[in-house]
Amino acid sequence: MRFSRFVAFGKNFCCLSAAVTVSKFDRLYAFRLLHQNCRLWRAVVSSTSLPVLLAAALPLKFMAPPITDAEQLLDNPDMKAKMELLILRIQKEFCESLEAEETSGKKFSIDRWRRQNEEEGGGITCVLEGGEVLERAGVNITVMRAPLSPKLQESMRARGKTLPADKNFEFFAAGVSSVIHPRNPHVPTMHFNFRYFEVQDQHGQNKHSWFGGGADLTPYYLNTQDVVQFHAALKSACDKHGPDKYPLFKRSCDEYFLNAARGERRGVGGIFFDDMESPNPDSDFNFVRDCADAIIPSYLPIVRRRKHEAFTAEQREWQLLRRGRYVEFNLVYDRGTKFGFATPGARIESVLVSLPLTAKWLYKHDPQPGSPEYTLTDVLKNPRDWV
Amino acid sequence: MRFSRFVAFGKNFCCLSAAVTVSKFDRLYAFRLLHQNCRLWRAVVSSTSLPVLLAAALPLKFMAPPITDAEQLLDNPDMKAKMELLILRIQKEFCESLEAEETSGKKFSIDRWRRQNEEEGGGITCVLEGGEVLERAGVNITVMRAPLSPKLQESMRARGKTLPADKNFEFFAAGVSSVIHPRNPHVPTMHFNFRYFEVQDQHGQNKHSWFGGGADLTPYYLNTQDVVQFHAALKSACDKHGPDKYPLFKRSCDEYFLNAARGERRGVGGIFFDDMESPNPDSDFNFVRDCADAIIPSYLPIVRRRKHEAFTAEQREWQLLRRGRYVEFNLVYDRGTKFGFATPGARIESVLVSLPLTAKWLYKHDPQPGSPEYTLTDVLKNPRDWV
Repeated sequence: MRFSRFVAFGKNFCCLSAAVTVSKFDRLYAFRLLHQNCRLWRAVVSSTSLPVLLAAALPLKFMAPPITDAEQLLDNPDMKAKMELLILRIQKEFCESLEAEETSGKKFSIDRWRRQNEEEGGGITCVLEGGEVLERAGVNITVMRAPLSPKLQESMRARGKTLPADKNFEFFAAGVSSVIHPRNPHVPTMHFNFRYFEVQDQHGQNKHSWFGGGADLTPYYLNTQDVVQFHAALKSACDKHGPDKYPLFKRSCDEYFLNAARGERRGVGGIFFDDMESPNPDSDFNFVRDCADAIIPSYLPIVRRRKHEAFTAEQREWQLLRRGRYVEFNLVYDRGTKFGFATPGARIESVLVSLPLTAKWLYKHDPQPGSPEYTLTDVLKNPRDWV
Repeated sequence: MRFSRFVAFGKNFCCLSAAVTVSKFDRLYAFRLLHQNCRLWRAVVSSTSLPVLLAAALPLKFMAPPITDAEQLLDNPDMKAKMELLILRIQKEFCESLEAEETSGKKFSIDRWRRQNEEEGGGITCVLEGGEVLERAGVNITVMRAPLSPKLQESMRARGKTLPADKNFEFFAAGVSSVIHPRNPHVPTMHFNFRYFEVQDQHGQNKHSWFGGGADLTPYYLNTQDVVQFHAALKSACDKHGPDKYPLFKRSCDEYFLNAARGERRGVGGIFFDDMESPNPDSDFNFVRDCADAIIPSYLPIVRRRKHEAFTAEQREWQLLRRGRYVEFNLVYDRGTKFGFATPGARIESVLVSLPLTAKWLYKHDPQPGSPEYTLTDVLKNPRDWV
């Protein structure tokens, strides 16, 4: 189902009857319109109970109505609900920050979808393609609950999860994932992802629950100022939760984002963590929230600073070749993409929003020693400490 | 090591002393020059033994000197030698046929390389990039012998090979592999690959030896005439070896070249076979040779017929989007690419010559029902019998 935001409906549409007669999601939209425009707002407030009103107001805060029934999310201490509200908020804030930088006036298109079996959940895929600043930007959330395929069970066991082989399992996953490919080669590509998993056995017992995520920067030209700023923002989010977090997760990031066959990292790193399953899930959640809140301050200043820098055709060509490497990493190594391809009925278009609009390959393209292109490849082969 | 063909040396270079004083491969090249140009040829013939002369003449027939010592290949009934001579010949013939179609005058660059441990063998990678007809064409051979990594052992066991878990194994592989990405969207992309494997235990005993290979066509627009011709050429090669071969391997091809997450094939198929390990290896070899010899008549007439057809910017755009799918298949599913990424010390640039020069992704690009683009996607989802 494709949703345009309320602006597309026109400012003057404010029919109360729509709010009470149409389907649930449409009703939420109608409330949204009412909230913005309508002189009948007081009438609605006075005729409706408070929980219904709050649930109706919820979508106003997000790119589209939540995947889970809005009324179920409100004031719900369950981690699944908390996580869904967090990722909905992060998606909205990040999309709006990016739109503010996009000079063409293009906005994210919003694609709210459900899995074929609607009870298994769905997602909200926000994509901006062909902008002046943003060549291809994707900011997605997914909230799903489905049987855990044998292949995925296997990969979880390989990572130390105790899942008896003779049982069936179901998993819940809620996550936000974003990759931004700007047009200007002086603006780095950026990726972040924060996710929460639960695995239950057939009796509904929680076997495991854990958080994972991270953020990393992929520049085409090395601007130390940018890289230091990016890492510093993530470090200060981590540091709130102990001095060990940033060094540990910075190193994990350098290890994870490795194109092993090439012996080079995807970019200049950031943070990466997985299987975060402490005795205190609330404290894990707070850590994830603080990291997610560090994304805008880590990246947006770089976009703002570099988006108008002049670039040559050769620099653009170099950017496309590096994007070829990005495609290699994402399709060959990335755990999220592999998870997508291994999940029966996965929505592959949402998984592959991470790919650039255009990528290029040339046989044995090696930059000249001493060139700015060479400087970048050198740092991809030999990760540095930035802060 | 990079070899230019003898033409680059100039027609007048014919110094006999070079042939007797320089290293082995250089000597072979010197003989080649002599063969072409030199009035001293008779003097060489009269002063050298026949086997040495034959070995020296061998590289003249190929893109570069063989990977295995040329003298060891001559009149050697061992399957490894027979296969290396076959793939050297196929590479040469196919490269020259393609060069004859390339209107820009560009020729294949020839990159003869060895593995880091030179005793493990190497390959000859022939690449033509940025031509008028051939946007990116790669025709590679590899001849290697190396320890079989645990990961590769695992994947062979999964395909039914009996390899005891507590032993070390070594493998030999010789193969030719080619992907041709033409510039004109009316000329289909074509791939073929023929390979021979041996796995030995640490006592040098052969545990298994088998052939694999195939050829498939990936059009951007469906021209039934082309597809029928392609399949017919492969079928007549197969039919020499029994009426069961083509139907079986045609079906295997449709099954193998499946982008499962998309529910669509990479193209309109062809033939695919693997683990061909009959009691009579010579008959298997003859089958492979006949299929390999069918490549030029299956594909080159299509290139010739379509290369000058006019195309629009929209058709080019569609071609790039389909090339994105080609990249997806090769990086996510293709067994050869996976083998490359899983082989320690693999030469990734040669593995990835299969990728197009440029590829593109757009979110949910669905062609209009009834359009030529839609006709293609329909046949990718529902494979047909062509001959």
